[in-house]
Amino acid sequence: MTKQQLVAQIKKKKSFLCIGLDVDLEKIPEHLLRLEDPIFEFNKQIIDATHHLAVAYKPNTAFYEAYGIKGWQALQKTIEYLKQKHPEIFTIADAKRGDIGNTSTRYAKVFFEDLNFDSITVAPYMGSDSVEPFLAFENKFTILLALTSNIGGLDFQTLKIENQELYKEVLRKSLTWKNSKNLMFVVGATRPEYFKAIRQIVPHHFLLVPGIGAQGGNLHDVCDYGLNKDIGLLVNSSRGIIYASNRIDFAQRSQEKALELQQEMEQILSLQ
Amino acid sequence: MTKQQLVAQIKKKKSFLCIGLDVDLEKIPEHLLRLEDPIFEFNKQIIDATHHLAVAYKPNTAFYEAYGIKGWQALQKTIEYLKQKHPEIFTIADAKRGDIGNTSTRYAKVFFEDLNFDSITVAPYMGSDSVEPFLAFENKFTILLALTSNIGGLDFQTLKIENQELYKEVLRKSLTWKNSKNLMFVVGATRPEYFKAIRQIVPHHFLLVPGIGAQGGNLHDVCDYGLNKDIGLLVNSSRGIIYASNRIDFAQRSQEKALELQQEMEQILSLQ
Repeated sequence: MTKQQLVAQIKKKKSFLCIGLDVDLEKIPEHLLRLEDPIFEFNKQIIDATHHLAVAYKPNTAFYEAYGIKGWQALQKTIEYLKQKHPEIFTIADAKRGDIGNTSTRYAKVFFEDLNFDSITVAPYMGSDSVEPFLAFENKFTILLALTSNIGGLDFQTLKIENQELYKEVLRKSLTWKNSKNLMFVVGATRPEYFKAIRQIVPHHFLLVPGIGAQGGNLHDVCDYGLNKDIGLLVNSSRGIIYASNRIDFAQRSQEKALELQQEMEQILSLQ
Repeated sequence: MTKQQLVAQIKKKKSFLCIGLDVDLEKIPEHLLRLEDPIFEFNKQIIDATHHLAVAYKPNTAFYEAYGIKGWQALQKTIEYLKQKHPEIFTIADAKRGDIGNTSTRYAKVFFEDLNFDSITVAPYMGSDSVEPFLAFENKFTILLALTSNIGGLDFQTLKIENQELYKEVLRKSLTWKNSKNLMFVVGATRPEYFKAIRQIVPHHFLLVPGIGAQGGNLHDVCDYGLNKDIGLLVNSSRGIIYASNRIDFAQRSQEKALELQQEMEQILSLQ
């Protein structure tokens, strides 16, 4: 998918909502557990109920790896279903991979070619040659961890390196890497005070923003400085939407939660 | 496996060799491709030929993920084979995972419980709560990326944070995390000049050292400052051993290469 197609979808749907498909068999409705592939069935019903309100879906691979081969099959079926039924949707493999050059190329092929994701999250610690193999794929996006939403995000990311924080150095340096136009960045919603500085370094790139809802981040705070002329934000909610109910009405309730966020987004966009 | 068991194995075998099982179907002997599970068959024959010379095996998960479900099955069979035939061997999932707390717990369960690995490599960028879920497992080891062997390793890891390099801050801070006794650290063999400083910060922990052979690191340089009273090193070679030949004699040739390294190690240990 191109950036233009993503922006067009956002403008059409008046939404920059990303839904995190972090499927936990202990949390999904019990009646699904009797089916052959409860993980896929859960995802399918969530997607059917919310695809007009969301522009992106983000399965976190840990939740699928946790179920072994069945988990991988469910992940594959979920992406195939999205690509077939809703080809306009942007798909994110939240995998946080990163390794030395040749090995990163293998991860990139798995997620971009075999599974056909539009994007993948990648960790920056190993530097340029661990990220550039992902960036080499045209019309695919590499979403680099910059400033994460968890407590440990402050252990290293905000330490000062020659008068600027590490996450800023990650942003700045990554812009010098080959095909850096294919970058996006993870910035947690729990850190709204950092968005202004981040936008000064990366005014044009998309930011993937987890951490609203359960983790405590606020949509308006994020938008104050996060929005750019292309909107430039994908704001993720996982648990708040997909686990709105664990009963027969779960898909309907997830739609209501997604609609609440979409309408908040529509209102924010109308003021731009 | 306990640290004492690992040390006992090293002393018995007079070896601290780790063999990287990075299986690439384009590089393995052609006659294996006709078999039902060429990846497992290749690993099995390498293990059969080298298990008396090596103390650890390290499959890099990217190589298995690259073959989808078949790859995961081959990985699972490889670890089962090791655990059954050679329970004294230390196993490392080179997966470089790391995510927010709950999600890291899932990865930890996959690799420590379901796949029964003794250890996993983990990226430090997301800090304490992304690593501690791995450290919570007793007699399992979390091998934190500190100073990696690739070129990009110098992008961030050696930048100065308040007068010390980032990798040192990673080492120091990680020692304050809960169950830090279950840590080991990745330090590339291509950075021998850093080993002295690293041993000052982490004198007692094991270091996993990739980068000898194909990547240019030298065993003697690594040992000069890397060895400690428990030996404290696992030195990895992948391509140099497993792809010593791509013909019918590949296992025999891998044994010869492993033997060369083991004998070099035995000589170094005899001088301690």
